[in-house]
Amino acid sequence: MALRKVIYPGTFDPITFGHVDIIKRAMDLFDEVIVTVARNPAKTSLFTVGERLEMLEVTLKDFPNVRVDAFDGLVVDHARAVGAVGIIRGLRAISDFEFEFQMALMNRKLSNGLKTIFLMPHEKYTYLNSTIIRNLAQFNADISDFVPHIVIEKLKDKIKPESLKKKNSIM
Amino acid sequence: MALRKVIYPGTFDPITFGHVDIIKRAMDLFDEVIVTVARNPAKTSLFTVGERLEMLEVTLKDFPNVRVDAFDGLVVDHARAVGAVGIIRGLRAISDFEFEFQMALMNRKLSNGLKTIFLMPHEKYTYLNSTIIRNLAQFNADISDFVPHIVIEKLKDKIKPESLKKKNSIM
Amino acid sequence: MALRKVIYPGTFDPITFGHVDIIKRAMDLFDEVIVTVARNPAKTSLFTVGERLEMLEVTLKDFPNVRVDAFDGLVVDHARAVGAVGIIRGLRAISDFEFEFQMALMNRKLSNGLKTIFLMPHEKYTYLNSTIIRNLAQFNADISDFVPHIVIEKLKDKIKPESLKKKNSIM
Amino acid sequence: MALRKVIYPGTFDPITFGHVDIIKRAMDLFDEVIVTVARNPAKTSLFTVGERLEMLEVTLKDFPNVRVDAFDGLVVDHARAVGAVGIIRGLRAISDFEFEFQMALMNRKLSNGLKTIFLMPHEKYTYLNSTIIRNLAQFNADISDFVPHIVIEKLKDKIKPESLKKKNSIM
Amino acid sequence: MALRKVIYPGTFDPITFGHVDIIKRAMDLFDEVIVTVARNPAKTSLFTVGERLEMLEVTLKDFPNVRVDAFDGLVVDHARAVGAVGIIRGLRAISDFEFEFQMALMNRKLSNGLKTIFLMPHEKYTYLNSTIIRNLAQFNADISDFVPHIVIEKLKDKIKPESLKKKNSIM
Amino acid sequence: MALRKVIYPGTFDPITFGHVDIIKRAMDLFDEVIVTVARNPAKTSLFTVGERLEMLEVTLKDFPNVRVDAFDGLVVDHARAVGAVGIIRGLRAISDFEFEFQMALMNRKLSNGLKTIFLMPHEKYTYLNSTIIRNLAQFNADISDFVPHIVIEKLKDKIKPESLKKKNSIM
Repeated sequence: MALRKVIYPGTFDPITFGHVDIIKRAMDLFDEVIVTVARNPAKTSLFTVGERLEMLEVTLKDFPNVRVDAFDGLVVDHARAVGAVGIIRGLRAISDFEFEFQMALMNRKLSNGLKTIFLMPHEKYTYLNSTIIRNLAQFNADISDFVPHIVIEKLKDKIKPESLKKKNSIM
Repeated sequence: MALRKVIYPGTFDPITFGHVDIIKRAMDLFDEVIVTVARNPAKTSLFTVGERLEMLEVTLKDFPNVRVDAFDGLVVDHARAVGAVGIIRGLRAISDFEFEFQMALMNRKLSNGLKTIFLMPHEKYTYLNSTIIRNLAQFNADISDFVPHIVIEKLKDKIKPESLKKKNSIM
Repeated sequence: MALRKVIYPGTFDPITFGHVDIIKRAMDLFDEVIVTVARNPAKTSLFTVGERLEMLEVTLKDFPNVRVDAFDGLVVDHARAVGAVGIIRGLRAISDFEFEFQMALMNRKLSNGLKTIFLMPHEKYTYLNSTIIRNLAQFNADISDFVPHIVIEKLKDKIKPESLKKKNSIM
Repeated sequence: MALRKVIYPGTFDPITFGHVDIIKRAMDLFDEVIVTVARNPAKTSLFTVGERLEMLEVTLKDFPNVRVDAFDGLVVDHARAVGAVGIIRGLRAISDFEFEFQMALMNRKLSNGLKTIFLMPHEKYTYLNSTIIRNLAQFNADISDFVPHIVIEKLKDKIKPESLKKKNSIM
Repeated sequence: MALRKVIYPGTFDPITFGHVDIIKRAMDLFDEVIVTVARNPAKTSLFTVGERLEMLEVTLKDFPNVRVDAFDGLVVDHARAVGAVGIIRGLRAISDFEFEFQMALMNRKLSNGLKTIFLMPHEKYTYLNSTIIRNLAQFNADISDFVPHIVIEKLKDKIKPESLKKKNSIM
Repeated sequence: MALRKVIYPGTFDPITFGHVDIIKRAMDLFDEVIVTVARNPAKTSLFTVGERLEMLEVTLKDFPNVRVDAFDGLVVDHARAVGAVGIIRGLRAISDFEFEFQMALMNRKLSNGLKTIFLMPHEKYTYLNSTIIRNLAQFNADISDFVPHIVIEKLKDKIKPESLKKKNSIM
């Protein structure tokens, strides 16, 4: 009977209750869950890696077997370095499916033996993602059902009043 | 028996016969259809909001219960302001499906009671969208089956001859 | 400003809260909603048409602008006979999508002008359908979150104790 | 430069204009197209293999490089026996996609070198299939846009008047 | 650090290398894997529950932390009875996705706390399933890449020579 | 019996073994395969058209009936200019499906008679694409199973050491 760690990589820009839901499920299934922030050069992030780590730490501080970090390079290398047996990914909808499978297969090829474990969040989070949250925050929409309090605070700081003067619309 | 308005939001950059098809269906189902141009900060549009409104007005001028406007902010707030009972969206293919459902769910959460009504365009418009039209216009392809005359004229003005000197190709 | 009726066809074997959710949305959008039971020769139904009508009537008795009936033949002919402007269909998930589009296109071809109107139920009903209810009822599972009280009663009568003696399992 | 034959297997119960559309495309791409009727034990067919062959032969009699036959056993064995370089399959919609890919992969495994060639029918046939035709024929719906004249005649013979007395409905 | 069991339910009619692949992954992630045969009244199975258990036991006899059983009733009740923290399911392709999500959501509703864990088999098993194996076996196709030796033997016994005299074909 | 050419357009930025797999299949089905590089203004490419042509030529130099070129403008015009009867496209997964169908339908409308021929690569290339290769190359991951030797060499030249100093991560 071995102690089993898993890694839960993501951009978390910012963390949502959909992410929290996945983390809680993983906590019950494995001995340690390492929530790890990817520095994604292709996407421009709203929050710095430092800010994203801070929001994760505040949100997850009472979760006993959860640890937060960030990684550079390939997730499979980071997983090996921390001794993880698997990568946790949330699977919400068909649109996630193929991207996630592509990643899982590549990671399997790059790291013999590392498994990807898909968990399904509560159906109320099926259509929630960080992009929507960033968009809603621009218009002072009520997002308290979707993100922790710390994220609401940070979004207020980040989204400057001048951005609200621009004429924008979201459908 | 109440008078019922609906709102049909979109970028309409430019309007196509696929949009016109949806508007005609909505006209028969509701008392008033408000076609409303979204100012989308995330996407760079080819036409200004003013140009898009002009093309819509010319195209829809003989449709008795259709009105054209533009909106800033959240579509749910605009729907409430104009007294709409629902949001019309065209649903053409699987690729539309999840994005549209995400939007519909968010809009439902943000505005209790507002409904999203999905209509299906004629199958000949299944694979038509504004992006393809903009691409085809660059190469002087015949697009008269896909967009109104006013759009063909406006695209000619917009796509400068020098752009055609660049070596490009589309598949 | 015309009075507008719509038709909501289905097998309703039995009615679930997912169906009720769609009916409520349609009630707010149209002047009259006719919930109409299809006699489907290809599927063997658990309940007779009479039993299905009774469950619908009990469930929908306080809905002011909803009427219940059954039809023989093509739904487009029935829609024309009752003067409906459109057919309401619930769209829950990708698996619904193609079947529904096929039906909508065929109905459009068979009856020029009749529109199919897709509404999306609450996300908590995304994965609910009558088949699951029939399966769960066999094992005395608690289905009170999914179907009206009258359905629970009728299922108890229908599913005889001897069926529970057979060794079955559902995943 | 080799003479290249392809095989187009199907149940053709009955042939539709969607099938004819695929056959015409294949005719222009290959030297000979063998349209071959599968005897499918799992599905109960409306027409006998002999009737299906007759409808194919009448429909395709003026197509110079098309031949009709039936096969027993594995399609890959029949393809080899007739010297085909590939199997033609129509791909209309997502729902076709996975079944077809499964078949293509199995056939590749069972017969090294045999290729599956997917062609897309005209979009007006996207939602057409033999099952819908059989259902519509029961109600004397006008199907002349979907199937050849010989099929309409054969369906009249096959669907006895007494079947119309039963109370059925299709959505 | 708790000992964690998971349950892997299925019809296994018969077991394939795709199932074995999922079991091996689950073995590395959890302390005990209970492979449990569902008695499915809706599907007619080729093998009896006893035969399916025998094939599983022979195939999995050298897997140290794997146990085989069968269950009656709801899988969530069986999971609770054996003390499982989760249900393992293989997820191969889009066609699996919605059925599996429906099951996972229902099981979550029926049994608070039980998690469904999705694992992805090797891509070479993406399009493999028990139905294909049963079909191929009818024609003496070589299936040794897809199923264990014991299954090939059992299929030979089960599929009587007389069934091969019938004129059938598979695409 | 006519000599039949087909065109296989793509960005090939860079060529992968998935592309090579499709080219080999097309070679057996048609008399000549023209692999043609699209200059795509919308996507920023890593390699110049000249570099992409060089990698294709080195990779395909021993393929007797394959020719390499580049095109400007519409692929349908280029197909007509070289006398091609069809356009070859690889179809790997659902995510390809709708984009490819949209392209195929537009090309059919723009060029009466030109056919799109979909081929399926080996399942081991289902989740391979050029974007993944470019990402993996940044981290010195072993990509020798996915691309020809010439591509590995060119990627080493292209991806400057300084890019590796930036803190990035890929999942």
